Amino acid sequence: MQSKQLFDPNSSTYSYLIWDEKTQEAALIDSVREQVERDSKLIQELGLNLHFLLETHIHADHVTGAGELRKRFEAKVAVHRNSQSTCADQLLEEGDSLTLGKQTINVLYTPGHTDTDICYRIEGAVFTGDTLMIRSSGRTDFQSGDAGAAYDSITKKLFSLEDKTIVWPGHDYQGLTQSSIGEEKQHNPRLAGKSRQEYIEIMESMDLPKPRHIAESVPGNLRCGIDKS
Amino acid sequence: MQSKQLFDPNSSTYSYLIWDEKTQEAALIDSVREQVERDSKLIQELGLNLHFLLETHIHADHVTGAGELRKRFEAKVAVHRNSQSTCADQLLEEGDSLTLGKQTINVLYTPGHTDTDICYRIEGAVFTGDTLMIRSSGRTDFQSGDAGAAYDSITKKLFSLEDKTIVWPGHDYQGLTQSSIGEEKQHNPRLAGKSRQEYIEIMESMDLPKPRHIAESVPGNLRCGIDKS
Repeated sequence: MQSKQLFDPNSSTYSYLIWDEKTQEAALIDSVREQVERDSKLIQELGLNLHFLLETHIHADHVTGAGELRKRFEAKVAVHRNSQSTCADQLLEEGDSLTLGKQTINVLYTPGHTDTDICYRIEGAVFTGDTLMIRSSGRTDFQSGDAGAAYDSITKKLFSLEDKTIVWPGHDYQGLTQSSIGEEKQHNPRLAGKSRQEYIEIMESMDLPKPRHIAESVPGNLRCGIDKS
Repeated sequence: MQSKQLFDPNSSTYSYLIWDEKTQEAALIDSVREQVERDSKLIQELGLNLHFLLETHIHADHVTGAGELRKRFEAKVAVHRNSQSTCADQLLEEGDSLTLGKQTINVLYTPGHTDTDICYRIEGAVFTGDTLMIRSSGRTDFQSGDAGAAYDSITKKLFSLEDKTIVWPGHDYQGLTQSSIGEEKQHNPRLAGKSRQEYIEIMESMDLPKPRHIAESVPGNLRCGIDKS
Protein backbone atom coordinates (compact mmCIF):
# COMPACT_ATOMS: atom_id res chain seq x y z
CA MET A 1 0.00 0.00 0.00
CA GLN A 2 1.25 3.44 -0.88
CA SER A 3 0.20 6.56 0.99
CA LYS A 4 0.70 10.29 1.06
CA GLN A 5 -0.10 12.58 3.94
CA LEU A 6 -1.58 15.96 2.98
CA PHE A 7 -1.98 19.00 5.22
CA ASP A 8 -4.52 21.80 5.31
CA PRO A 9 -2.90 24.66 7.25
CA ASN A 10 -6.13 26.55 7.97
CA SER A 11 -7.67 23.74 9.98
CA SER A 12 -4.44 21.80 10.70
CA THR A 13 -6.16 18.79 9.15
CA TYR A 14 -4.30 15.81 7.74
CA SER A 15 -5.85 14.07 4.76
CA TYR A 16 -4.44 10.78 3.46
CA LEU A 17 -4.33 9.48 -0.07
CA ILE A 18 -3.80 5.71 -0.01
CA TRP A 19 -3.61 3.30 -2.91
CA ASP A 20 -2.76 -0.19 -4.03
CA GLU A 21 0.27 0.16 -6.24
CA LYS A 22 -0.66 -2.74 -8.48
CA THR A 23 -4.20 -1.72 -9.36
CA GLN A 24 -3.96 2.01 -8.62
CA GLU A 25 -7.26 1.77 -6.72
CA ALA A 26 -7.26 4.61 -4.20
CA ALA A 27 -9.07 6.14 -1.25
CA LEU A 28 -8.85 9.63 0.19
CA ILE A 29 -9.41 9.88 3.93
CA ASP A 30 -10.72 13.16 5.42
CA SER A 31 -10.53 15.44 2.42
CA VAL A 32 -10.86 19.21 2.94
CA ARG A 33 -13.06 21.31 0.65
CA GLU A 34 -10.48 24.08 0.23
CA GLN A 35 -7.94 21.51 -1.00
CA VAL A 36 -10.06 19.86 -3.69
CA GLU A 37 -8.05 21.38 -6.55
CA ARG A 38 -4.72 20.30 -5.07
CA ASP A 39 -5.96 16.81 -4.34
CA SER A 40 -7.67 16.37 -7.73
CA LYS A 41 -4.45 17.31 -9.49
CA LEU A 42 -2.41 14.89 -7.42
CA ILE A 43 -4.85 12.01 -8.03
CA GLN A 44 -4.70 12.68 -11.77
CA GLU A 45 -0.91 13.00 -11.88
CA LEU A 46 -0.49 9.71 -10.04
CA GLY A 47 -2.97 8.03 -12.40
CA LEU A 48 -5.10 6.76 -9.53
CA ASN A 49 -8.63 5.37 -9.70
CA LEU A 50 -10.33 6.95 -6.74
CA HIS A 51 -12.79 4.44 -5.29
CA PHE A 52 -13.56 5.78 -1.83
CA LEU A 53 -13.85 9.08 0.01
CA LEU A 54 -13.67 8.04 3.63
CA GLU A 55 -14.49 10.16 6.64
CA THR A 56 -13.18 9.38 10.12
CA HIS A 57 -16.18 11.28 11.55
CA ILE A 58 -18.49 14.24 10.97
CA HIS A 59 -15.99 17.06 11.44
CA ALA A 60 -16.73 20.26 13.34
CA ASP A 61 -13.67 22.24 12.27
CA HIS A 62 -13.61 22.02 8.48
CA VAL A 63 -15.86 21.04 5.62
CA THR A 64 -15.15 17.88 3.67
CA GLY A 65 -14.24 17.91 -0.02
CA ALA A 66 -15.92 14.52 -0.52
CA GLY A 67 -19.03 15.75 -2.32
CA GLU A 68 -17.05 17.77 -4.86
CA LEU A 69 -14.47 15.01 -5.36
CA ARG A 70 -17.25 12.47 -5.89
CA LYS A 71 -18.50 14.52 -8.82
CA ARG A 72 -15.04 14.48 -10.38
CA PHE A 73 -14.02 10.87 -9.76
CA GLU A 74 -17.23 8.91 -9.18
CA ALA A 75 -15.91 7.56 -5.90
CA LYS A 76 -18.16 6.40 -3.07
CA VAL A 77 -18.49 8.54 0.03
CA ALA A 78 -18.44 6.47 3.22
CA VAL A 79 -19.15 7.54 6.82
CA HIS A 80 -20.24 5.85 10.01
CA ARG A 81 -23.87 4.79 10.09
CA ASN A 82 -24.56 6.86 13.23
CA SER A 83 -24.10 10.04 11.25
CA GLN A 84 -27.18 11.76 9.97
CA SER A 85 -25.50 12.08 6.58
CA THR A 86 -27.92 12.87 3.80
CA CYS A 87 -25.39 12.20 1.07
CA ALA A 88 -23.20 9.17 1.87
CA ASP A 89 -23.14 6.22 -0.51
CA GLN A 90 -22.07 3.75 2.12
CA LEU A 91 -22.73 3.62 5.86
CA LEU A 92 -20.00 1.83 7.78
CA GLU A 93 -19.89 0.06 11.11
CA GLU A 94 -17.50 -1.96 13.27
CA GLY A 95 -16.12 -4.98 11.46
CA ASP A 96 -16.79 -3.74 7.93
CA SER A 97 -14.01 -3.87 5.41
CA LEU A 98 -13.29 -2.18 2.11
CA THR A 99 -10.82 -3.30 -0.51
CA LEU A 100 -8.34 -1.51 -2.74
CA GLY A 101 -6.88 -4.12 -5.06
CA LYS A 102 -5.58 -6.84 -2.76
CA GLN A 103 -5.40 -4.50 0.21
CA THR A 104 -8.03 -4.53 2.93
CA ILE A 105 -9.13 -1.52 4.93
CA ASN A 106 -10.68 -2.55 8.26
CA VAL A 107 -13.26 -0.36 9.93
CA LEU A 108 -12.89 0.10 13.70
CA TYR A 109 -15.73 1.94 15.40
CA THR A 110 -14.09 4.14 18.04
CA PRO A 111 -16.70 6.47 19.56
CA GLY A 112 -15.82 9.11 22.11
CA HIS A 113 -14.77 12.26 20.29
CA THR A 114 -18.15 12.00 18.56
CA ASP A 115 -20.52 9.05 18.11
CA THR A 116 -19.47 8.68 14.45
CA ASP A 117 -15.74 7.97 14.84
CA ILE A 118 -14.04 5.41 12.68
CA CYS A 119 -10.39 4.43 12.61
CA TYR A 120 -9.29 2.82 9.35
CA ARG A 121 -6.70 0.09 9.79
CA ILE A 122 -4.56 -1.09 6.93
CA GLU A 123 -1.29 -3.04 6.64
CA GLY A 124 0.75 -1.86 9.63
CA ALA A 125 -0.93 1.51 9.99
CA VAL A 126 -4.06 3.03 11.45
CA PHE A 127 -5.69 6.33 10.45
CA THR A 128 -7.04 7.53 13.74
CA GLY A 129 -8.91 10.74 12.91
CA ASP A 130 -9.56 12.64 16.14
CA THR A 131 -9.81 9.52 18.29
CA LEU A 132 -6.07 9.34 18.97
CA MET A 133 -3.69 12.14 18.09
CA ILE A 134 0.02 12.53 18.72
CA ARG A 135 0.41 12.84 22.52
CA SER A 136 -3.20 14.01 22.46
CA SER A 137 -6.76 12.94 21.70
CA GLY A 138 -9.98 14.48 20.43
CA ARG A 139 -12.10 16.63 22.73
CA THR A 140 -15.28 15.02 23.99
CA ASP A 141 -17.50 17.96 24.86
CA PHE A 142 -19.88 18.14 21.88
CA GLN A 143 -21.41 16.04 19.07
CA SER A 144 -22.34 13.25 21.51
CA GLY A 145 -18.78 13.15 22.80
CA ASP A 146 -18.15 10.83 25.74
CA ALA A 147 -14.79 10.76 27.53
CA GLY A 148 -15.32 7.29 29.00
CA ALA A 149 -16.22 5.87 25.60
CA ALA A 150 -13.14 7.57 24.13
CA TYR A 151 -10.91 5.95 26.75
CA ASP A 152 -12.41 2.55 25.98
CA SER A 153 -12.02 3.02 22.23
CA ILE A 154 -8.38 4.01 22.57
CA THR A 155 -7.27 1.57 25.23
CA LYS A 156 -9.32 -1.46 24.19
CA LYS A 157 -9.30 -1.17 20.40
CA LEU A 158 -6.33 0.92 19.34
CA PHE A 159 -3.92 -0.13 22.07
CA SER A 160 -4.59 -3.78 21.24
CA LEU A 161 -2.94 -3.24 17.84
CA GLU A 162 0.77 -4.05 17.53
CA ASP A 163 3.04 -1.47 19.13
CA LYS A 164 4.81 -0.77 15.84
CA THR A 165 1.55 0.12 14.06
CA ILE A 166 1.95 3.60 12.60
CA VAL A 167 -0.56 6.16 13.85
CA TRP A 168 -1.62 8.72 11.24
CA PRO A 169 -3.73 11.32 13.04
CA GLY A 170 -6.48 13.61 11.76
CA HIS A 171 -4.77 16.74 13.03
CA ASP A 172 -1.63 18.03 14.60
CA TYR A 173 -1.00 21.52 15.88
CA GLN A 174 2.74 21.22 16.59
CA GLY A 175 4.14 20.05 13.26
CA LEU A 176 4.31 16.40 14.27
CA THR A 177 3.18 14.09 11.49
CA GLN A 178 3.03 10.50 12.69
CA SER A 179 3.33 8.32 15.76
CA SER A 180 2.97 4.66 16.64
CA ILE A 181 0.71 2.72 19.00
CA GLY A 182 3.73 1.91 21.20
CA GLU A 183 4.73 5.56 21.43
CA GLU A 184 1.25 6.67 22.40
CA LYS A 185 0.86 3.94 25.00
CA GLN A 186 4.10 5.09 26.57
CA HIS A 187 4.09 8.86 26.07
CA ASN A 188 0.55 10.16 25.58
CA PRO A 189 0.16 12.29 28.71
CA ARG A 190 -3.58 11.73 28.90
CA LEU A 191 -3.32 7.97 28.62
CA ALA A 192 0.01 6.59 29.79
CA GLY A 193 -0.62 5.12 33.23
CA LYS A 194 -4.01 6.84 33.48
CA SER A 195 -7.20 5.12 34.59
CA ARG A 196 -10.54 5.55 32.86
CA GLN A 197 -11.68 7.87 35.64
CA GLU A 198 -8.52 9.95 35.41
CA TYR A 199 -9.01 10.28 31.66
CA ILE A 200 -12.59 11.43 32.16
CA GLU A 201 -11.41 14.03 34.69
CA ILE A 202 -8.70 15.28 32.33
CA MET A 203 -11.16 15.65 29.46
CA GLU A 204 -13.83 17.26 31.63
CA SER A 205 -11.42 19.77 33.11
CA MET A 206 -10.56 21.24 29.71
CA ASP A 207 -12.17 24.57 29.13
CA LEU A 208 -12.09 24.85 25.37
CA PRO A 209 -13.91 27.37 23.21
CA LYS A 210 -16.33 25.95 20.67
CA PRO A 211 -14.74 25.35 17.27
CA ARG A 212 -15.14 28.60 15.34
CA HIS A 213 -16.86 27.01 12.37
CA ILE A 214 -18.95 24.30 14.02
CA ALA A 215 -22.27 25.92 13.10
CA GLU A 216 -21.46 25.65 9.39
CA SER A 217 -19.12 22.64 9.40
CA VAL A 218 -21.38 20.01 10.92
CA PRO A 219 -24.40 20.61 8.66
CA GLY A 220 -22.01 21.13 5.72
CA ASN A 221 -20.43 17.76 6.36
CA LEU A 222 -23.81 16.07 6.65
CA ARG A 223 -24.29 17.22 3.03
CA CYS A 224 -20.76 15.99 2.06
CA GLY A 225 -19.65 19.61 1.69
CA ILE A 226 -22.06 20.38 -1.14
CA ASP A 227 -23.93 23.65 -0.70
CA LYS A 228 -27.67 23.62 -0.71
CA SER A 229 -29.06 24.90 -4.02
CA MET B 1 15.95 3.17 8.79
CA GLN B 2 13.13 4.90 10.61
CA SER B 3 12.17 8.50 9.96
CA LYS B 4 9.76 11.18 11.05
CA GLN B 5 8.97 14.32 9.14
CA LEU B 6 8.52 17.46 11.27
CA PHE B 7 7.02 20.77 10.18
CA ASP B 8 7.68 24.33 11.23
CA PRO B 9 4.62 26.35 10.17
CA ASN B 10 6.27 29.77 10.39
CA SER B 11 8.87 29.03 7.75
CA SER B 12 7.09 26.03 6.15
CA THR B 13 10.29 24.07 6.80
CA TYR B 14 10.43 20.31 7.01
CA SER B 15 12.95 18.79 9.40
CA TYR B 16 13.62 15.06 9.44
CA LEU B 17 14.55 12.84 12.33
CA ILE B 18 16.10 9.63 11.01
CA TRP B 19 17.48 6.70 12.96
CA ASP B 20 18.71 3.15 12.80
CA GLU B 21 16.18 1.11 14.71
CA LYS B 22 18.72 -1.40 15.97
CA THR B 23 21.26 1.00 17.45
CA GLN B 24 19.00 4.05 17.94
CA GLU B 25 21.73 6.20 16.38
CA ALA B 26 19.99 9.24 14.93
CA ALA B 27 20.42 12.34 12.81
CA LEU B 28 18.25 15.43 12.56
CA ILE B 29 18.24 17.13 9.18
CA ASP B 30 17.47 20.87 8.94
CA SER B 31 16.39 21.61 12.48
CA VAL B 32 14.62 24.91 13.23
CA ARG B 33 15.58 26.99 16.27
CA GLU B 34 11.98 27.65 17.30
CA GLN B 35 11.31 23.90 17.40
CA VAL B 36 14.23 22.86 19.61
CA GLU B 37 12.00 22.08 22.60
CA ARG B 38 9.63 19.96 20.54
CA ASP B 39 12.46 18.09 18.85
CA SER B 40 14.44 17.55 22.07
CA LYS B 41 11.40 16.04 23.73
CA LEU B 42 10.77 13.71 20.80
CA ILE B 43 14.41 12.55 20.68
CA GLN B 44 14.27 11.80 24.40
CA GLU B 45 10.92 10.02 24.25
CA LEU B 46 12.13 7.80 21.43
CA GLY B 47 15.32 7.03 23.34
CA LEU B 48 17.54 8.07 20.43
CA ASN B 49 21.26 8.79 20.49
CA LEU B 50 21.59 11.89 18.36
CA HIS B 51 24.86 11.68 16.42
CA PHE B 52 24.46 14.27 13.69
CA LEU B 53 22.79 17.60 13.04
CA LEU B 54 22.83 17.84 9.27
CA GLU B 55 22.12 20.92 7.19
CA THR B 56 21.10 20.73 3.54
CA HIS B 57 22.49 24.27 3.08
CA ILE B 58 22.92 27.62 4.80
CA HIS B 59 19.29 28.67 5.03
CA ALA B 60 18.02 32.16 4.33
CA ASP B 61 14.49 31.77 5.67
CA HIS B 62 14.91 30.35 9.16
CA VAL B 63 17.60 29.84 11.77
CA THR B 64 18.87 26.35 12.53
CA GLY B 65 18.43 24.72 15.92
CA ALA B 66 21.69 22.80 15.46
CA GLY B 67 23.82 24.83 17.86
CA GLU B 68 21.33 24.56 20.70
CA LEU B 69 20.67 20.87 20.05
CA ARG B 70 24.42 20.17 20.00
CA LYS B 71 24.64 21.50 23.53
CA ARG B 72 21.91 19.15 24.66
CA PHE B 73 22.90 15.98 22.83
CA GLU B 74 26.60 16.31 21.97
CA ALA B 75 25.89 15.59 18.31
CA LYS B 76 28.13 16.79 15.49
CA VAL B 77 26.97 19.65 13.28
CA ALA B 78 27.74 19.02 9.61
CA VAL B 79 27.42 21.38 6.62
CA HIS B 80 28.94 21.66 3.18
CA ARG B 81 32.55 22.79 3.11
CA ASN B 82 31.73 25.77 0.88
CA SER B 83 29.83 27.40 3.71
CA GLN B 84 31.64 29.98 5.77
CA SER B 85 30.38 28.23 8.89
CA THR B 86 32.27 29.25 12.01
CA CYS B 87 30.76 26.51 14.12
CA ALA B 88 30.45 23.24 12.20
CA ASP B 89 32.17 20.11 13.49
CA GLN B 90 32.33 18.45 10.11
CA LEU B 91 32.60 19.89 6.61
CA LEU B 92 31.06 17.67 3.96
CA GLU B 93 31.60 17.27 0.25
CA GLU B 94 30.45 15.11 -2.65
CA GLY B 95 31.07 11.44 -2.05
CA ASP B 96 31.30 11.64 1.74
CA SER B 97 29.26 9.25 3.80
CA LEU B 98 28.06 9.13 7.38
CA THR B 99 26.83 6.09 9.25
CA LEU B 100 24.00 5.48 11.68
CA GLY B 101 24.37 1.91 12.89
CA LYS B 102 24.47 -0.17 9.74
CA GLN B 103 22.83 2.53 7.68
CA THR B 104 24.80 4.77 5.34
CA ILE B 105 23.94 8.36 4.53
CA ASN B 106 25.49 9.44 1.22
CA VAL B 107 26.34 13.07 0.60
CA LEU B 108 25.44 14.44 -2.83
CA TYR B 109 26.69 17.93 -3.57
CA THR B 110 23.91 19.65 -5.51
CA PRO B 111 24.73 23.34 -5.96
CA GLY B 112 22.33 25.75 -7.62
CA HIS B 113 19.96 27.09 -4.98
CA THR B 114 23.12 28.12 -3.12
CA ASP B 115 26.71 26.90 -3.40
CA THR B 116 26.36 24.91 -0.18
CA ASP B 117 23.56 22.49 -1.12
CA ILE B 118 23.70 18.88 -0.06
CA CYS B 119 21.14 16.17 -0.66
CA TYR B 120 21.36 13.28 1.78
CA ARG B 121 20.59 9.89 0.25
CA ILE B 122 19.69 6.92 2.37
CA GLU B 123 17.99 3.56 1.69
CA GLY B 124 15.37 4.36 -0.94
CA ALA B 125 14.96 8.02 -0.03
CA VAL B 126 16.64 11.34 -0.61
CA PHE B 127 16.37 14.45 1.54
CA THR B 128 16.55 17.19 -1.05
CA GLY B 129 16.51 20.44 0.93
CA ASP B 130 15.74 23.30 -1.44
CA THR B 131 17.41 21.66 -4.44
CA LEU B 132 14.28 19.77 -5.49
CA MET B 133 10.89 20.44 -3.98
CA ILE B 134 7.48 18.97 -4.81
CA ARG B 135 6.62 20.22 -8.31
CA SER B 136 9.06 23.03 -7.56
CA SER B 137 12.70 23.84 -6.85
CA GLY B 138 14.71 26.35 -4.85
CA ARG B 139 15.15 29.90 -6.13
CA THR B 140 18.58 30.72 -7.54
CA ASP B 141 18.80 34.49 -7.21
CA PHE B 142 20.97 34.93 -4.10
CA GLN B 143 23.65 33.19 -1.98
CA SER B 144 25.67 32.28 -5.09
CA GLY B 145 22.60 30.74 -6.68
CA ASP B 146 23.02 29.52 -10.25
CA ALA B 147 20.08 28.25 -12.30
CA GLY B 148 22.22 26.27 -14.74
CA ALA B 149 24.06 24.54 -11.90
CA ALA B 150 20.71 23.78 -10.25
CA TYR B 151 19.44 22.17 -13.47
CA ASP B 152 22.57 20.04 -13.68
CA SER B 153 22.35 19.01 -10.01
CA ILE B 154 18.73 17.96 -10.37
CA THR B 155 18.83 16.31 -13.77
CA LYS B 156 22.26 14.68 -13.55
CA LYS B 157 22.45 13.69 -9.89
CA LEU B 158 18.93 13.42 -8.52
CA PHE B 159 17.21 12.20 -11.66
CA SER B 160 19.77 9.41 -11.98
CA LEU B 161 18.42 7.86 -8.76
CA GLU B 162 15.76 5.17 -9.08
CA ASP B 163 12.32 6.51 -9.98
CA LYS B 164 10.77 5.05 -6.84
CA THR B 165 13.21 6.92 -4.55
CA ILE B 166 11.17 8.96 -2.09
CA VAL B 167 11.81 12.71 -2.21
CA TRP B 168 11.61 14.43 1.17
CA PRO B 169 11.83 18.18 0.51
CA GLY B 170 13.05 21.02 2.71
CA HIS B 171 9.83 23.00 2.35
CA ASP B 172 6.36 22.84 0.98
CA TYR B 173 3.86 25.66 0.85
CA GLN B 174 0.80 23.68 -0.28
CA GLY B 175 0.55 20.96 2.34
CA LEU B 176 2.24 18.31 0.21
CA THR B 177 4.67 16.19 2.20
CA GLN B 178 6.59 13.85 -0.08
CA SER B 179 7.20 12.96 -3.70
CA SER B 180 9.37 10.55 -5.68
CA ILE B 181 12.08 10.99 -8.28
CA GLY B 182 9.77 9.46 -10.90
CA GLU B 183 6.95 11.87 -10.05
CA GLU B 184 9.20 14.90 -10.28
CA LYS B 185 10.72 13.79 -13.57
CA GLN B 186 7.24 13.48 -14.98
CA HIS B 187 5.30 16.29 -13.31
CA ASN B 188 7.65 19.03 -12.09
CA PRO B 189 6.54 21.91 -14.31
CA ARG B 190 9.99 23.52 -14.33
CA LEU B 191 11.79 20.33 -15.29
CA ALA B 192 9.59 17.84 -17.15
CA GLY B 193 10.59 18.13 -20.81
CA LYS B 194 12.51 21.35 -20.16
CA SER B 195 16.00 22.06 -21.47
CA ARG B 196 18.76 23.60 -19.39
CA GLN B 197 18.21 26.93 -21.17
CA GLU B 198 14.46 26.81 -20.58
CA TYR B 199 15.06 26.13 -16.88
CA ILE B 200 17.42 29.10 -16.65
CA GLU B 201 14.81 31.32 -18.32
CA ILE B 202 12.09 30.10 -15.95
CA MET B 203 14.24 30.78 -12.90
CA GLU B 204 15.43 34.17 -14.15
CA SER B 205 11.91 35.33 -15.00
CA MET B 206 10.75 34.92 -11.41
CA ASP B 207 10.37 38.20 -9.65
CA LEU B 208 10.54 37.19 -6.01
CA PRO B 209 10.92 39.44 -2.99
CA LYS B 210 13.95 38.79 -0.82
CA PRO B 211 13.26 36.37 2.04
CA ARG B 212 12.05 38.50 4.94
CA HIS B 213 14.61 37.22 7.40
CA ILE B 214 17.65 36.74 5.19
CA ALA B 215 19.68 39.47 6.89
CA GLU B 216 19.51 37.65 10.22
CA SER B 217 19.14 34.06 9.02
CA VAL B 218 22.30 33.68 6.96
CA PRO B 219 24.72 35.02 9.58
CA GLY B 220 22.73 33.22 12.29
CA ASN B 221 23.11 29.93 10.45
CA LEU B 222 26.83 30.50 9.96
CA ARG B 223 26.97 30.48 13.79
CA CYS B 224 24.74 27.33 13.98
CA GLY B 225 21.93 29.45 15.37
CA ILE B 226 23.81 30.46 18.51
CA ASP B 227 23.60 34.16 19.31
CA LYS B 228 26.78 36.14 19.62
CA SER B 229 27.61 36.83 23.23
